[in-house]
Amino acid sequence: MSTLSELRRQNLKLAKKLVKESVNQDLFIVNAISNVEELAKIANTLTKRLREWYAIYFPELEKKVQDNEAFVKLVLKADKKGLLAEGKDNVKDEMGADLEKQDLEPILSLASIITDLLREKQLLEDYLDKTMKAHAPNLSAVAGSLIGAKLLKEAGSLKRLAMMRSSTIQLLGAEKALFRHIRTGARPPKYGYLLQHQFVQKAKKDERGKAARALADKIFLAVRVDYFKGSYIADKLIAELEERFKISLDKAGDASSRGGRG
Amino acid sequence: MSTLSELRRQNLKLAKKLVKESVNQDLFIVNAISNVEELAKIANTLTKRLREWYAIYFPELEKKVQDNEAFVKLVLKADKKGLLAEGKDNVKDEMGADLEKQDLEPILSLASIITDLLREKQLLEDYLDKTMKAHAPNLSAVAGSLIGAKLLKEAGSLKRLAMMRSSTIQLLGAEKALFRHIRTGARPPKYGYLLQHQFVQKAKKDERGKAARALADKIFLAVRVDYFKGSYIADKLIAELEERFKISLDKAGDASSRGGRG
Repeated sequence: MSTLSELRRQNLKLAKKLVKESVNQDLFIVNAISNVEELAKIANTLTKRLREWYAIYFPELEKKVQDNEAFVKLVLKADKKGLLAEGKDNVKDEMGADLEKQDLEPILSLASIITDLLREKQLLEDYLDKTMKAHAPNLSAVAGSLIGAKLLKEAGSLKRLAMMRSSTIQLLGAEKALFRHIRTGARPPKYGYLLQHQFVQKAKKDERGKAARALADKIFLAVRVDYFKGSYIADKLIAELEERFKISLDKAGDASSRGGRG
Repeated sequence: MSTLSELRRQNLKLAKKLVKESVNQDLFIVNAISNVEELAKIANTLTKRLREWYAIYFPELEKKVQDNEAFVKLVLKADKKGLLAEGKDNVKDEMGADLEKQDLEPILSLASIITDLLREKQLLEDYLDKTMKAHAPNLSAVAGSLIGAKLLKEAGSLKRLAMMRSSTIQLLGAEKALFRHIRTGARPPKYGYLLQHQFVQKAKKDERGKAARALADKIFLAVRVDYFKGSYIADKLIAELEERFKISLDKAGDASSRGGRG
């Protein structure tokens, strides 16, 4: 009996050790990219609130500055008088209320928390870029680290992504449109996350489907090589794409910028 | 012609001035309470993410600590070794992966941004409490400043809230259930936001509808007095409620605590 319980104990210990060692980079990447997407959505929600709130104080600025990040920066930069004196974006007159300090404070505090969230998102993107490059160098180079991470998240793991056909990869992120196509016979989607890739962006409008198909083929190869720990073939894959479509891709800086709007 | 354009200019100036002066506290309150609700939802979303992510590292802690705020605090307090040594919540063994510093960093950084968001929410609640007490003293005293702000938001302004019947006030925040009742004949709701009030919470289960009705009557009176700038009658209203239902309400500290889970 005591041998049995000893055996059980050892068994449990072994199982825990195996669980411990089963953790791999996939899990970090999936969590990080999900968090990036959540932070983007949250920053958006809060900026909408900031715009509505700030419009009580200075409606003209809210109307003029469309870009969210620029808007948050301006809110924090100076008060209404300062911004008016600067004549930023040709706003010269205003009909907002003059707020007491105590009513203005929560608005500014919201703006600074949005700034924090955006900084956090940027840090996380840098982390993702680094991790993706180490974990799946070919995938990050061909797809861009952010789009690569999204593909990996959608598939669940690098292994499962490596087992997918290139036509599946091409449509990852377009599940809604795909099922609508199957259900209602609407036109099938041509790309999911890959639309965000600068290669598809730069292709002629009527060649985008073809470009996404070609890109998916290369990503398919890149992922397999990464999964089986092959060598670095991404440059060759990219060169082939550029050659075939007469498109030159920006190589400047990190792979995340290659992902375009990724 | 130049007289006309001068007239037009003066007119525009006057209109802008009127717009400027039309802003009142209602707008700040509506924005602040909406923001409080958004921040609560966001902190929740992010804590879910943190739990999933942290579980790679230390799954036992994630399981043991149910409360979100306590969980975030523990994550930031010490690393796994420290928490294990402390024997916090009887967690003595673990099967999480031992993370590299670089993989742990984004997790901790997420935890600290959640802390910032919760602090921001608290500041905003304090601001709301102060503003509500100044703007609608009777309403804040009877309903609690957070529940009062929610009612005000749902109505759109203090004026519109003051024009509502008490049966409408009773059901603010229960619109979904009300329309389900109207559409399908399901049982009608007995309370909306008022369920969060400690008075309804403390009532016997089968008297909650009645309690909400009585509370709504008093809120109805309180709001009218506030809107027409009457004197402070809240203490009398509360005493009448307590007397009738044999419930004594906590008066400690600020009105926001009176709102219970508000």
